Amino acid sequence: MYKVKILSVGKHKEPWLQEALDLYTARLKGQMGLEWTLVKDDAHLNELLLKEKAFICLSPEGKQFTSESFASFLQEALLKGGSRLSFAIGGADGFSKAVKEKAGLLISLSPLTFTHQITRLILLEQLYRALEIHKGSSYHK
Amino acid sequence: MYKVKILSVGKHKEPWLQEALDLYTARLKGQMGLEWTLVKDDAHLNELLLKEKAFICLSPEGKQFTSESFASFLQEALLKGGSRLSFAIGGADGFSKAVKEKAGLLISLSPLTFTHQITRLILLEQLYRALEIHKGSSYHK
Repeated sequence: MYKVKILSVGKHKEPWLQEALDLYTARLKGQMGLEWTLVKDDAHLNELLLKEKAFICLSPEGKQFTSESFASFLQEALLKGGSRLSFAIGGADGFSKAVKEKAGLLISLSPLTFTHQITRLILLEQLYRALEIHKGSSYHK
Repeated sequence: MYKVKILSVGKHKEPWLQEALDLYTARLKGQMGLEWTLVKDDAHLNELLLKEKAFICLSPEGKQFTSESFASFLQEALLKGGSRLSFAIGGADGFSKAVKEKAGLLISLSPLTFTHQITRLILLEQLYRALEIHKGSSYHK
């Protein structure tokens, strides 16, 4: 089973967000285990990331993917990481230069700015979609 | 007050989605009124769109915007449309050639494929964000 860690600024305090994340967590069950690390601000997030072994930052400056190319990327990254992978979602202040340099890759979900709540939901849905694409299911059609 | 109509395939049946959409609808209250037209499939959506006066399609092939450029675009489009504007969110089968030709513009939220539920949420949040950017509030910072 894959283990994905998501580090993010903020809380899951909105009931709709918790419900939506629970839904995708349930769909990923048995295939991918999720671990959340929620911190209060970007300073703490940057500090934690410098202690992480390998991670990918979600940042508007990052590389854009289609869902299909993200699915291929994810498979390779999970293979390389021994089925483990970490993603970081920054807040308003973004990632420090040191963190960006240490990050394996910066991924952009869109040139639009999203709230970090919506970003968490998009990430989970893309992780689920990537596994479905890899399995050749009809989910993404 | 602005009037925005959103035409989309599918239902708001997920409780988390309805809750999230209600939240942004409440935030837009007094500034922008939303009208939803939900149809069962792309064939019905395409049929309805051919009767619409002016509309914008959300499509992966469309033009990408930053939240700032979308805010400027939205102001101009609302001005041109006499404070009225329609957006269309297609389903798996997408828009017909006739609809794409009639559409004022095709907008892409991301090269990633999103569910239409998540697309609705992103659109509402971007509409709210656009008004906040235009007002110069600190929401988007």
